[in-house]
Amino acid sequence: MDTSNQLYRDSLVIDGLNVSNWDSTGVYDSLQAGGVTAINATIATWENFSETLDAIKCWGPRFDRYGKLIVPVRTVDDILMAKREGKTGIILGFQNASPIENDLDRLAIFHSLGVRVIQVTYHERNLLGNGCYERRDDGLSNFGIDAVKEMNRLGILIDLSHVGIRTTMETIEVSEKPVACTHANTKRYYDVPRNKALDAVKLLAEKGGIVGATCITGFLKTGPRSKLADYVEAIDDLVDLIGIDHVGIGTDFTQDQPESFWLYISSQQGTKYPAFCTDPNKVWVVNDPTFYPSELQAPDDLPRLADSLLHRGYSEEDVMKILGGNWMRLFGEVWKK
Amino acid sequence: MDTSNQLYRDSLVIDGLNVSNWDSTGVYDSLQAGGVTAINATIATWENFSETLDAIKCWGPRFDRYGKLIVPVRTVDDILMAKREGKTGIILGFQNASPIENDLDRLAIFHSLGVRVIQVTYHERNLLGNGCYERRDDGLSNFGIDAVKEMNRLGILIDLSHVGIRTTMETIEVSEKPVACTHANTKRYYDVPRNKALDAVKLLAEKGGIVGATCITGFLKTGPRSKLADYVEAIDDLVDLIGIDHVGIGTDFTQDQPESFWLYISSQQGTKYPAFCTDPNKVWVVNDPTFYPSELQAPDDLPRLADSLLHRGYSEEDVMKILGGNWMRLFGEVWKK
Repeated sequence: MDTSNQLYRDSLVIDGLNVSNWDSTGVYDSLQAGGVTAINATIATWENFSETLDAIKCWGPRFDRYGKLIVPVRTVDDILMAKREGKTGIILGFQNASPIENDLDRLAIFHSLGVRVIQVTYHERNLLGNGCYERRDDGLSNFGIDAVKEMNRLGILIDLSHVGIRTTMETIEVSEKPVACTHANTKRYYDVPRNKALDAVKLLAEKGGIVGATCITGFLKTGPRSKLADYVEAIDDLVDLIGIDHVGIGTDFTQDQPESFWLYISSQQGTKYPAFCTDPNKVWVVNDPTFYPSELQAPDDLPRLADSLLHRGYSEEDVMKILGGNWMRLFGEVWKK
Repeated sequence: MDTSNQLYRDSLVIDGLNVSNWDSTGVYDSLQAGGVTAINATIATWENFSETLDAIKCWGPRFDRYGKLIVPVRTVDDILMAKREGKTGIILGFQNASPIENDLDRLAIFHSLGVRVIQVTYHERNLLGNGCYERRDDGLSNFGIDAVKEMNRLGILIDLSHVGIRTTMETIEVSEKPVACTHANTKRYYDVPRNKALDAVKLLAEKGGIVGATCITGFLKTGPRSKLADYVEAIDDLVDLIGIDHVGIGTDFTQDQPESFWLYISSQQGTKYPAFCTDPNKVWVVNDPTFYPSELQAPDDLPRLADSLLHRGYSEEDVMKILGGNWMRLFGEVWKK
């Protein structure tokens, strides 16, 4: 394990999506133990403008309280600094454009406050477009097209992980900067609504974007009995399809979240539970260890991934790209105005 | 004119849509002079939850201040009382579902506060469906279907005037109570985005609904030079297509509105002006008398309509249906739980 350990320690390790309980000390301890350089930290899924401002407000005290473990990220230099200091950089991100409500000028407000990643939609319809669990998808609205242009202008990375098929494709087509699926696999690998269509990820990669493979077992074809090697297979699929320069990781870890979180994220529009489910009687199982691969339960398990990738035959250079190098390149391209 | 004057005085005169400046005394004077029994008074177009609660809040003082001219309407009995007392009944209505934001339970709040008419969308996309000026229309969302069911349950009349083609059709199909286009003409009469498709108004009528013919000259085929007789032609078209029991009036009068109102209603999502326009350089002309037919500029001109309808050959019974009898029947059916 020495080679992989040293390689891991030398790498920028960037997780494309983490949606943990940000008031839990254990979350930051796990990121520290896992040597994670930076994460896209979800701070909004269904929230509106004022609720999201309140969510952002909480980060000042958090950066003070956990200052030995985390630092705020607004630029790629901040990520490099986090690496040097052995801390985890926190990139503020939304999984929905709901925080801007009906006003595109709020994108600039959120950018000023440090938000660097915004997903177009979350599961369902919003004013921009449709989510992957909506009954249909007619693509971007006029408002959505203008939102994409404004995020391009500001330097906010556009995320398409939970977005509907046509809205995903149109956003890739309309965006003048590369975009990402921060946490998703492909439908070729496993055909569920949350995994992405092949033409979309191909075009996304052609235009310089990145897909962060997700390790939630519901989106792995091996399901609840998945192991780390199964997650690596989802990575293999992406590398084979779009090339080594366009694949990252996006675990979608959800550490220490209470039941209320699961009800909220799986609700209809943040208020009614759980209309989007195929089986409306299905309830997410909270803290079920089979929700993630057996050997990849939390950020502190991430060092195992380097070893697993090397064993699979990836070169050291390729492993470094997957672990975070590719995200770093994309952030550099998109965040600059 | 004696016959028509007496007929008009005996009629319930109900205007399916009025979106005037509710702080202008002249508006209530005009309704009084026109002998208007009740109006669907728009109090929200792009507003959110708190903005709409504030808009409702203003009506207590207004009903006090203008108590000799207006009364609040929550039931059809309130309309009959308004008629007996020679006042105008004010039905609170929305031209958008934006006030409920992402929470269907807010429909019950608004119903409790007296709101009796809600349009599914206004011009563009919202969480329920698409408006008539949106670039595409994929119909109702899951949230939209549930909103229709909840409005049915509460007894809120669903309005489809500004709604997109597919969302209009699906709402008619899904709704278990009759629905309305409170202010629209047909595409057969004049094919513009704001006028309604024939299959939709036919099905709407088959299911007991009503279309209120609108007199805004932009939706009359004779355009800015329209006279009262041209408006009657739009009524004729509807009567011919869906029958005398399914046609009302919905003037869309906009008395005493300032320029800020026109910029707001023609904006993108209430914030950005005017993305939905075919010609983005087009600016609504404020207080342009050609915006309404020359003989039908305001509610105090409405008595002329009875005369015009009689001259066109409508029976007295039919004139009474068009002037308000049909709206009364529909309100009675829909508002009861």
